[in-house]
Amino acid sequence: MSAITLPVATTVVEAAVEKAREIGQPMNIAVVDDGGHLVAFARMDGAIKASVDISIRKARTSILMNAPTSALTPLVQPGAELYGLEQLSGGLVIFGGGILLTDGDHVIGAIGVSAGSVEQDVSVAEAGVAVLGS
Amino acid sequence: MSAITLPVATTVVEAAVEKAREIGQPMNIAVVDDGGHLVAFARMDGAIKASVDISIRKARTSILMNAPTSALTPLVQPGAELYGLEQLSGGLVIFGGGILLTDGDHVIGAIGVSAGSVEQDVSVAEAGVAVLGS
Amino acid sequence: MSAITLPVATTVVEAAVEKAREIGQPMNIAVVDDGGHLVAFARMDGAIKASVDISIRKARTSILMNAPTSALTPLVQPGAELYGLEQLSGGLVIFGGGILLTDGDHVIGAIGVSAGSVEQDVSVAEAGVAVLGS
Amino acid sequence: MSAITLPVATTVVEAAVEKAREIGQPMNIAVVDDGGHLVAFARMDGAIKASVDISIRKARTSILMNAPTSALTPLVQPGAELYGLEQLSGGLVIFGGGILLTDGDHVIGAIGVSAGSVEQDVSVAEAGVAVLGS
Repeated sequence: MSAITLPVATTVVEAAVEKAREIGQPMNIAVVDDGGHLVAFARMDGAIKASVDISIRKARTSILMNAPTSALTPLVQPGAELYGLEQLSGGLVIFGGGILLTDGDHVIGAIGVSAGSVEQDVSVAEAGVAVLGS
Repeated sequence: MSAITLPVATTVVEAAVEKAREIGQPMNIAVVDDGGHLVAFARMDGAIKASVDISIRKARTSILMNAPTSALTPLVQPGAELYGLEQLSGGLVIFGGGILLTDGDHVIGAIGVSAGSVEQDVSVAEAGVAVLGS
Repeated sequence: MSAITLPVATTVVEAAVEKAREIGQPMNIAVVDDGGHLVAFARMDGAIKASVDISIRKARTSILMNAPTSALTPLVQPGAELYGLEQLSGGLVIFGGGILLTDGDHVIGAIGVSAGSVEQDVSVAEAGVAVLGS
Repeated sequence: MSAITLPVATTVVEAAVEKAREIGQPMNIAVVDDGGHLVAFARMDGAIKASVDISIRKARTSILMNAPTSALTPLVQPGAELYGLEQLSGGLVIFGGGILLTDGDHVIGAIGVSAGSVEQDVSVAEAGVAVLGS
């Protein structure tokens, strides 16, 4: 399997939505395939509109950097090695909430979550990731 | 109700997906709110990637122009009144597949469908619209 | 006088709004200065949102081309001399509704009107221009 | 009421202009609807041209983030949680001068003010907001 399917992406989004409800924070949730192209998206009622773009971009950034977006945060601070990275490749997100999705062996896509605190975004994204495996 | 909710948008997307399956054409399906901001999206397995952008933009164009995108096609041909319209307002789609969603009285959002022929796109978008009406 | 003032621009917008009401077509109306920078803007209730960008761009195009936008229409058709012009200079509008504003001797700004038919847009823009003349 | 009307937006702009005159700082003042689309705008004579874009973007940022733009300033500093936010969602403004407009219960739009110090921008925006409330 090289790219996530819509049924799997929908399951990932639904698990993330459920977690977001549990913590009481409406979210924007995006799932992209292994090429960074959108597969499924949901904006929960009340979630901020800026996060439409941010959630999709978090998922895409994870694919483009082959890493969770939280891993980029220390690398892009003033004086750090990749300072200025965020404006490259069409605009990358450099704070947490984007995480790769794998089938155990290979990357099949990524999830991006945005609208809460970064900690909330990451925990909702992790709930989406958890659906896929052990 | 001034803007579509996620549960309603999800129902619209699902009805469109069902129609797309029925005609055997995988589609990208987007629903935006009354301000043109994405609420729900699904790319069916096998649907072309270019249509991620095109489907979202079709829905957004319907909101911005307050009309189905198919209404624009004759107006933007060489020699016609709005020739050149497509490159304005951030990029508008000038062929069919974007249709307004209403609650009977007011616009609450729009659906955009892309990946098949324009005729197929329109028929799948109409299946999404039909969910809301009587 | 090299650039229109806010009081004059407001008078131009108000005259255009009055004309738009008279013909029963809600409009987006923009006035820019002699450098193409926005001075005053009004979107009448019910006017389409796409025309926010289009009206501002019509006014700006008039300044950049030193001509009414309607003068561009024949020049940009397939086979004509300036075919493709509309995508240059950050995006120009090539149909009517943008007209220069002068103090009799010099260009002081431009008005752009959008949301109706091109004929309606032009007539509303002309009502704005008429305020300045004798 | 879900979106601000032109008469209300004009009243907001005029109150802001009056305040700007009072403090002797010409300003750019923008009002957008609840979807972030421009409704009314005025650039006072002598106000800097860069602030055409900045004022409109401040109002739009308030809508997209559902918050005053001043709330973003601490969150986007180097090392802070949302460092890099400003380049997302089409470009957000991360300093004060954008404030939400409500009808008491719901967001109906936002005002953005720019051309003075941030403190001046905020006080002029607040004068616009004050028109709506008690």
